[in-house]
Parts: sequence; structure tokens; C-alpha cells
Amino acid sequence: MPVTTNFMVTAHIRNLDYWQWAPEVDVIANDHYLDHRLGDPVTELSFAADLTRGLAGGAPWLLMEQATGAVNWQPHNLAKAPGELTRNSLTHVARGADAVCFFQWRASLQGSEKFHSALVPHAGTDTELWREVVALGATLDRLVDVAGTRVVADAAIIFSWEAWWAGDGESRPSHSVEYLGQMHAAYTALHRLGVTVDVVAPDADLGRYRLVVVPTLYLVNDADAANLSDYVANGGHAVVTFFSGIVDEDDRVRPGGYPGAFRELLGIRVEEFSPLLPGRQVGLDSGAAAGLWTERLHLDGATAVARYLDGPLPGFPAITRNSFGRGTAWYLATALDSDALREVMRTATQAAHVTALGPESDGSIEVVRRADATHSYLFIINHGHSTIEIAASGRELVTDVAVDRIVRVPAGAVRVIREDTAA
Amino acid sequence: MPVTTNFMVTAHIRNLDYWQWAPEVDVIANDHYLDHRLGDPVTELSFAADLTRGLAGGAPWLLMEQATGAVNWQPHNLAKAPGELTRNSLTHVARGADAVCFFQWRASLQGSEKFHSALVPHAGTDTELWREVVALGATLDRLVDVAGTRVVADAAIIFSWEAWWAGDGESRPSHSVEYLGQMHAAYTALHRLGVTVDVVAPDADLGRYRLVVVPTLYLVNDADAANLSDYVANGGHAVVTFFSGIVDEDDRVRPGGYPGAFRELLGIRVEEFSPLLPGRQVGLDSGAAAGLWTERLHLDGATAVARYLDGPLPGFPAITRNSFGRGTAWYLATALDSDALREVMRTATQAAHVTALGPESDGSIEVVRRADATHSYLFIINHGHSTIEIAASGRELVTDVAVDRIVRVPAGAVRVIREDTAA
Amino acid sequence: MPVTTNFMVTAHIRNLDYWQWAPEVDVIANDHYLDHRLGDPVTELSFAADLTRGLAGGAPWLLMEQATGAVNWQPHNLAKAPGELTRNSLTHVARGADAVCFFQWRASLQGSEKFHSALVPHAGTDTELWREVVALGATLDRLVDVAGTRVVADAAIIFSWEAWWAGDGESRPSHSVEYLGQMHAAYTALHRLGVTVDVVAPDADLGRYRLVVVPTLYLVNDADAANLSDYVANGGHAVVTFFSGIVDEDDRVRPGGYPGAFRELLGIRVEEFSPLLPGRQVGLDSGAAAGLWTERLHLDGATAVARYLDGPLPGFPAITRNSFGRGTAWYLATALDSDALREVMRTATQAAHVTALGPESDGSIEVVRRADATHSYLFIINHGHSTIEIAASGRELVTDVAVDRIVRVPAGAVRVIREDTAA
Repeated sequence: MPVTTNFMVTAHIRNLDYWQWAPEVDVIANDHYLDHRLGDPVTELSFAADLTRGLAGGAPWLLMEQATGAVNWQPHNLAKAPGELTRNSLTHVARGADAVCFFQWRASLQGSEKFHSALVPHAGTDTELWREVVALGATLDRLVDVAGTRVVADAAIIFSWEAWWAGDGESRPSHSVEYLGQMHAAYTALHRLGVTVDVVAPDADLGRYRLVVVPTLYLVNDADAANLSDYVANGGHAVVTFFSGIVDEDDRVRPGGYPGAFRELLGIRVEEFSPLLPGRQVGLDSGAAAGLWTERLHLDGATAVARYLDGPLPGFPAITRNSFGRGTAWYLATALDSDALREVMRTATQAAHVTALGPESDGSIEVVRRADATHSYLFIINHGHSTIEIAASGRELVTDVAVDRIVRVPAGAVRVIREDTAA
Repeated sequence: MPVTTNFMVTAHIRNLDYWQWAPEVDVIANDHYLDHRLGDPVTELSFAADLTRGLAGGAPWLLMEQATGAVNWQPHNLAKAPGELTRNSLTHVARGADAVCFFQWRASLQGSEKFHSALVPHAGTDTELWREVVALGATLDRLVDVAGTRVVADAAIIFSWEAWWAGDGESRPSHSVEYLGQMHAAYTALHRLGVTVDVVAPDADLGRYRLVVVPTLYLVNDADAANLSDYVANGGHAVVTFFSGIVDEDDRVRPGGYPGAFRELLGIRVEEFSPLLPGRQVGLDSGAAAGLWTERLHLDGATAVARYLDGPLPGFPAITRNSFGRGTAWYLATALDSDALREVMRTATQAAHVTALGPESDGSIEVVRRADATHSYLFIINHGHSTIEIAASGRELVTDVAVDRIVRVPAGAVRVIREDTAA
Repeated sequence: MPVTTNFMVTAHIRNLDYWQWAPEVDVIANDHYLDHRLGDPVTELSFAADLTRGLAGGAPWLLMEQATGAVNWQPHNLAKAPGELTRNSLTHVARGADAVCFFQWRASLQGSEKFHSALVPHAGTDTELWREVVALGATLDRLVDVAGTRVVADAAIIFSWEAWWAGDGESRPSHSVEYLGQMHAAYTALHRLGVTVDVVAPDADLGRYRLVVVPTLYLVNDADAANLSDYVANGGHAVVTFFSGIVDEDDRVRPGGYPGAFRELLGIRVEEFSPLLPGRQVGLDSGAAAGLWTERLHLDGATAVARYLDGPLPGFPAITRNSFGRGTAWYLATALDSDALREVMRTATQAAHVTALGPESDGSIEVVRRADATHSYLFIINHGHSTIEIAASGRELVTDVAVDRIVRVPAGAVRVIREDTAA
């Protein structure tokens, strides 16, 4: 019998290394709930969906639980706005889900979960929530052919529970450097550029990607470090951020200058970490602003892309780029602010010829493609407050109309185009 | 033998349902200490005194403990300003206390309570504190005839320990909605309008009141819900605030649309709660500002008094009014700011012909009447920084002078007029 | 065999009364680490070194542990800036250390201390950190003759672990009044004035000092109280701050008006404490600003130097001065802000003819003298960003040059002059 279980790939849950568990189940399934304690819960949903797909090795997966509206376990449990249930659900589908399930069918009247939303709310079926549920069911019916297709991505981000556990330990240089926060920052920069990324394990086959981003991979074993180096040597592009490659799989520092695992790949040598107090900002000669972290970094083959203007290490390189074999490896030695991080990612993705399906946005526009050998489906999710236009041709399945070159997506709406030619 | 015990009707203490215990003692007694962790400790004193009187069923009670000055268990233990001891003490008397006792007689020299103030301070009797104690004793001597009279009030506010316990539970829609905070907000609005209120249990005989206010009565049993509805049906006026009437006495949600217990009374039906993140404000078309909470509310007989201009539910009703039987029931679906809440209460009290003994103020003026069949006493407490004038005629007992039509009360002073004609 | 152990005279560690332990060891040794959770970690280093010298009874001591760079146990572990290691180390030497040792020799690769800096960092010896270590060794070689000399100071500050433990207890007037914070504030004021102070026990021989400062000495036994009073009676100058002399050695309040132990010495009588809520400021008629604490204080022989303009006790004395025997005793009844506190200390040190070796500064300049019967050494530490000039003549040992009347100390540098004539 095929087996599955509901993983919890969601912020704040980190107890299990799902890379170890995933091969043992036949179908990957996930529970996901928007977390309004985060700065950007909607982008986190996309990240979690991409990571769930990574656990499935790129194959379709099941969204086993989500909420129609508010949950009951956050300090402030927000309802969903009109259309948000559909946008959330189809974002999961766009990113690989072949099923959209919920907790719970009928809102319970007693017990600790009675204020957790349900398909049928306390107020019954004469409710906006119920009507959204029914409409979602109808929409999903029209997307039945999407099932089985795979998400198209030519960029990847490396995620590691072991690096999370080890890097967020007690006695570390800065408690303000947290794995998930740095991961989300890197993911968000790519998301804002309209790039679809696979979220993969450190030992993944990277050869299929044009760009691989490695945020704060504090712990990495020799094989996985070689995996990344070989990828670049063979023509790949990588962006590695600070506090990566510091220790081996036993949490043993790799001596001789940081980041031990990636020193040669990056063409740098770091003498000493120099964290910043919270709230302190440093400027770069590129005009960028950064914080949290700096390093006493020496070039050892790499080029300085930007240097500190101030802070504890003025004149030292903050962003570097190294030619390694037939590829290119970037290093970010500081926590760039979101604008500066996106600027670096824009340059890196363009140099690597990464596909940006969507336009650049503030995160309100997501464009993702699923395809198989014969068909492709373009998902467009408009979280914003105005109509957008996206180039596409084919059959729009949500509204069941033909699309010729341009599809207009109203504020808050989702469109799925069965494209005329597979991507 | 008559029995009593010192209840702790004071902020932050909520372990016991005194409505259950009160009938078992012969005389109600309370301990009260100003709590400077609160935004307005002086108004909380009045609230606690009114609630203690409620426990006594309106009969006189004893203030068994209070402090002459600072306590020792708050983070910052403020001394009392000149006159504050008298104002605090006579506020308790005005609101039903027939005795004013203290902890402790002589300031202890050792132990955890050594910095708790006392009648005789560490510095001895050549102190301002001791002189205030002596003066208070003299003043109380002149008020001896007040003993046995009852406070006059024609408005009530419903208080329930069971609703407090259940509504402040773990898995609730918003942790920023706290029972005592909502209770104090409603009480404060009435207090600022110069209205004396009785604080009563949900099963109290409401027929004697012109207005009954019901803040956040999350849990209510059928009989108590009927008690309120019957009161309105028979011509009463009620103001009910959000997150009231949600569950029965077993914490079981009343289905079919919130607020289940009061849906018919209020003429509304709420599909879904929509809490707000802290700090987020919504505007109403009445000009009011609100926060914390909104609801997807439909009119089902009620009139919309104000609607949201923005926030998650623009255009939905925020304040409603319903004619029910021969009475009127208001509903506040959001946490109005203090100005807006007082504006609603002003309208409601005027429509209900509630007596405002005092002028409107910022809380610095309190006017309360105690009376029996033959005499009445008007207490005027001036917490403010300038002299006020209040209409009264009779004998002023604190200064022992005749008052003809107007009594002038200096900044910081208390006056008690034995009125020429009983109220 | 002589015995020693590494004391932990450093912020946040207070478990042991080192005054009790110190006589039992033959050589005093200390561990000190800069604590970037403090507002001014560099001045705290000087305080801790002065207190360590106090434990040694003025004799030389050993710095058994410090860090070459960052530690690993603070939330944000900052690296040391260029020159900081030398400044830190020579500040310890200037204040009595005859040895400068480190934790740890070689940076560990595993375990909880692997990100604690070391003499040999992870990156090896081709590092700025290693070069600073080597240079420090060379500098210390040139200072070998300093060993055995003693620090010259004619002012003292009284420090008591017992007062710390008792005064920071649970049920106290204000949790914002903390012993170490008040101690650091008083020390900092003297430090900014260029004054070298000994940090001594309440039972120390005070006769050698021109000024003794007593911050928040909540608990004091009769003998130690008499020690201070006798000192002033014999011509000494004292500055006592609020919440001093309140209880005896059994934490028993001394009744009759605060501060019981020092009432006669100070010529005052305090009826009642009047703490302020955090953030509340009071103004004084001297132009000073203060907070946290006020008192209902009566003059009983003392003169009012400044009175409150506002707050709970307008018109009451805030700063007093009393002639007692042949000496003078100041009392600060409130927590003056840093400017006002320095102003009082400036007046008091000048009246007492206390030596200020250094110029007034923002804390960036430290000038300290060590001497024996035949030689004297003037240490000048410039933490600032510009060159300073200090009067001195002799041989400068760090750069090995002759100095004639003026030594110029570059930004960030330390100079040690073997003076032509002993002080």
C-alpha cells in the first residue's frame, strides 16, 4: 500500500530532517498555514510549497491541510480576505500540489480548535466563506488536467535542516543571524524578480540549474561542498551568503580561514567574523545598505564587487565574485537589505540566464509554469490591488475563455492558461 | 456569629468566582490597592468598589485593606500624593464602604513587606503620612451617619468571572482582546460621563436599571441570556460589545451565526470574526477610530449606526442598534477608541434617561450619592488640579459648613453634602 | 605554596562576596570580558580592574583571562577593533595588573567555545589578530619594570556585594533602581573627570582618601556606617546617593527616618521614598534633570544644593551638603542624569582637592599612574579618534622615545611614560 503522512513544512517547525524521511513515503504531503507573525506570510507560503516539492523530488504532492480562514493558535488569528483562499490554494497547485485538502470539515463547537476555521463555519452555509469553498471546488475541477505535470524551474536554493539546527545553536557569533530569516530573505529576492526556484537538498543534482543560491549553509559535509564546487566548475553560477561552509558534519570548524568548505570556490579568505549590534547599519560603495554581519575578508582570486564605506571594516570587500572552473561564484559577506539583495540577485540571475516568468514586483505577482511532455500551464496569481497584464496564449481555465497573447488578471484573481505550446 | 473574609477585588486577581462565594458570607469585605501598572489606577479603584458593592447586593461593605502610601510588590511602588489617601478612602465610602481599614498598623522593619506603607511609617509620627491618617480619621468621624445608606445608581454593567476565565483562554481569536481591559474601557466611558453604575452578575435583577452594559460576555448560559433579552423586551436599554454571547456554560459555541446568545436581541448575524493585528486602526463613517477586532456582520433587523471605511471589511456595520420588544439593544462590533466609546455611551445613556450625577470629565471628577429612606449624601471627589463647582444644598460634612445651591470643591479635595432633601 | 584562583569581577556575575574570599588567596587574579550588552563596556573594564585592585588591597594582581577578540556567549559577539586588544590589556596593567593572560591559546574547533576568540585564531597566524597578539607581547616586554608598582589614587568608591544582594531583592521600592547600574553611573562620572579611584570595601581604611563616594549602599552594618562617619568627621569628603544606609546587616530597616545609618552624617531626615515610573523625568532648580527616585526629605542641618521644580515633590531638596565634624557630606536624593551627576562630582572633587590626572573627556581618555618609592609610570590610553596631548616628561616605553613636557598620543594608541621624577 502506498503510504504518506502530513509533513509540517512551515515556519517555526524544525524538529525533523524531512530530507531523511521523504524517501520513505510514497507520496509527499504537507500541512501549511499562513503565519501572520511573519513579515510576509504569503511569500512564505510559496517558499514552503517549493520546499515541499523539493522533498517530492519535483514530483506532484498533496496539500493535506490548510485553513479556509483563521487559525486559532497565533496571537492574532486573521480571517482571509475575499479571494485569498483561492489565491493560497492555487499557489500551492502552481507550485506542485495535485490536491488541496483542509482541516477541518465542520467547525467544531467545543475544544481547543473550535475557533479554527473550517469548510463549514459556525455560521453555516449562508456565508461568504462557504461560497468561496464551493467556488474553489469548481475551479479545481477545471484544473484536473494539471495533475501530474511538474513545475518548471532553472534556479535552485539549497535548504538544510542540519545547517539550520547547527547554525542556530547557542554559542554562536550573532543570535540575530537566524537560518530561516536568511533563507526567506534570499528566497524573497528571487521571488520578487519573478524567478521560480526549486528548493533542494545540499546533495541534490545541481547540474540541471543555471543558478544555485546557498544561504547561510553553516554546516556542510565534504561531499556536499564538493557537489556545489563541481557544479560551478562545470559552468554553474552560485551565490553563497555569509556563515556558510564553516563546519563539517560534526560541527567541527574547518580551519585555515573561513569559509573553509567554500574558500577555494569563492576565492576568498576570511580572518574573523565581525557581527554588528542590532540596528547598526553599514554602507557599501555600491550604494547598498547592510547590517548584522561583516567579515575581515581577503580576496584570494575573487573580485570585490562592493566594499564597506564604514562600520568596523571600511574598505574591506562586502560582495565578491569569483571565476571558478567554467562557472562563477558570488559571495555576500554581509546581510544586505532587501533592495540591495535583490539587486545582486538580479545581476546574478541575468548573468546566469535564469528564466524570470513573472515581472519584477513587490511580491504581489506570482507566475509559475507546470508542464509535462505535451502540455504546459501558466499560473498567474495577482495578490495586488490592480489589474495586471501578462503575456500568454491559450485557454484560460478558471474563467474558461481563450487568451491571445495577453491575459488580463484582475486585482486579487488567479488565472491558469493551458498554453498553446508546451514550454 | 457573622462571618466575613477579605476578598481581593482588584486588577490581576481572578482565581475565584466571588459571585458564588458572596452569598456565603454575612458581610462583604475587600482588599484594594492602587495598581500603577494600569493606565488609570484611580478609575480602577472606583470600578473595584462598585464591583464589591455588587457582591454585597448593594448593601454596605467593608474596605478591609488598603495602603496609606506605596505598596512593595509592584515594579515601581509610587507614594501617594498629598490628599490622595483621603480621596482614595472616601471614594470607597462613596461607593458603599462603611469601614476603611488598612494593612498595616506599624511599618514592619523586616521581612518581605517592610517597604509596604503603614499607618505609622518607619520615620514615625512626625510625617505627612501620619498627619493624613489622623485627618482621615477625623473626617470619617464626621461621616458616621452615612453608614447604612446605599449607593444610588440606575445603570449597570455586567461582570462575570466565568466569562473572564473562558474568554481569556488559550486558543482564541485574539490575545489582544482581554476581558478586564474591555471591561475597564466600558466602565471608564460611563465614569467619564459622570454616571454611577452598579456592577452586577449576569443573573442579577436588571429591571431596576435604565441601561445595562455588557462588555465581552463571551460565555453566558441560556438563563442569563434570557435575563438580558427579557430586560430589553420589557423596555430596557442594553449596550453589548463584541465577543459576547459566543458560547454556553460548557464553552460550547452557539452555532448559526454569532453572537448566538444575543443574535435575536441585537438583530444581527455575524459570519466570521476578523481580528486586527496590534497597532492597526480602522476608521468608521461616524468619524470614530477603532482597532483589535472587526466582524463580517449582517443586519437582521438592526440599524447600522456606523460602518467601516477601511480595514478588512469596508462598508460592513461596526455599530448597530436594534429595537427589541419595548426596548433598545446596541451592539459594538469593534474596539472603539476611548473618545468614540464615550460618544456611543453618551448617546445610549441619554436615550435611556440615565442619571449623570457628575459633569463629564477626564476622570478627575467623581460625584456619587448614597441615600436611605430619609437622608441622602452627595460625595464629590476632585482628583483634578483646579477648583470645581457642583450643584448641591445642605450641610457639607468634611468642612462642616452650610452649602446653598453650589459647593466649591478645591483641587484634590473631597466634599460630602448631607442633602436637604433625600434624592 | 602560594594559591590563587580566577575571580569573575565582571558585570552580571554577583554570586560571591569576594571581600570575604580575597584574604584567603595569596595573589588576586581576575577574568574579564568586555560585555557589549552594557552601554559602555570600556568604562566597565576600568571599573572591574579598579575593583580587582581593591580586592588585592592595592597590590598588583593578575589578569588571568581575557579575549583577544569576540566571545561566544553574548547575543552579539563583536570583534575587537584594531588596537583595542592593546588598549584593553594596558588598561588592566595601568590599573594594577602585573600579568595579562588569555583564554584560549588555540581556537578550539569543536564544542561550545569554538567561536570564542583565541591567541591563534581558526584562520591561523597570517591574521591581524595574531599580529596584534605578537605586538602586545613585545609591548609588555618593555613594561617589565612596571611590575610591582602600585596605582596612585586619592579618591575611593565603596562597593559591597552584600548591599548588592539585599538592595536588588524582590520587594523593593523600585525595580529600576539596580545596584550595579547606580554604581557604574557614579564611577563613570569620576572616570569622565579624569579621576583615578580605588574601589574599596565598606570597612576599608578611608583615611588615605580625599573623597569617598557611596552609591546606593542600601545595607550597611553599624561599624561600616561609623567608618564612613568617622572619616568625614576627621576631615573627609563623602558623596552618598539615595537608597543608602537603609537597613542593617540583617536587612532590618533602621527606623526614625531614612537613611538611618547616615542621617546624622548627612544632616537630613527622609519621611518617605517616592519612586518615579520609568521614563518620567523631574527637573531641579539647578537646571539638572533626574529620574527614577525622589524622597520626601527634610533638612536637619544640611544645606539644600538643589530642589525639585516638579515631579511629586516640588520644592523639596534633591541634593544636599552637610558639614560634619571637620568634613563635608553630600547626599543625592535622586538619580541625576549623567551630565548633572558629573557636575556634582566635579564640584565635590574640586572641593576635596582630588587629583584629576586626566583631562575631562567623554570617556575616551584615561590617564593613570603607577608608582613605587623610586619610580612612577604614567599610562595614557586614547580610545578616541584624534591625537591628544598630555603633560609628561621622561621615557615613553611603548615607542621607546624621550618625552619632554608633552606626549602626543595618536588616536587609538597607548603610551606609558617612565617619569623623570616619582609622583
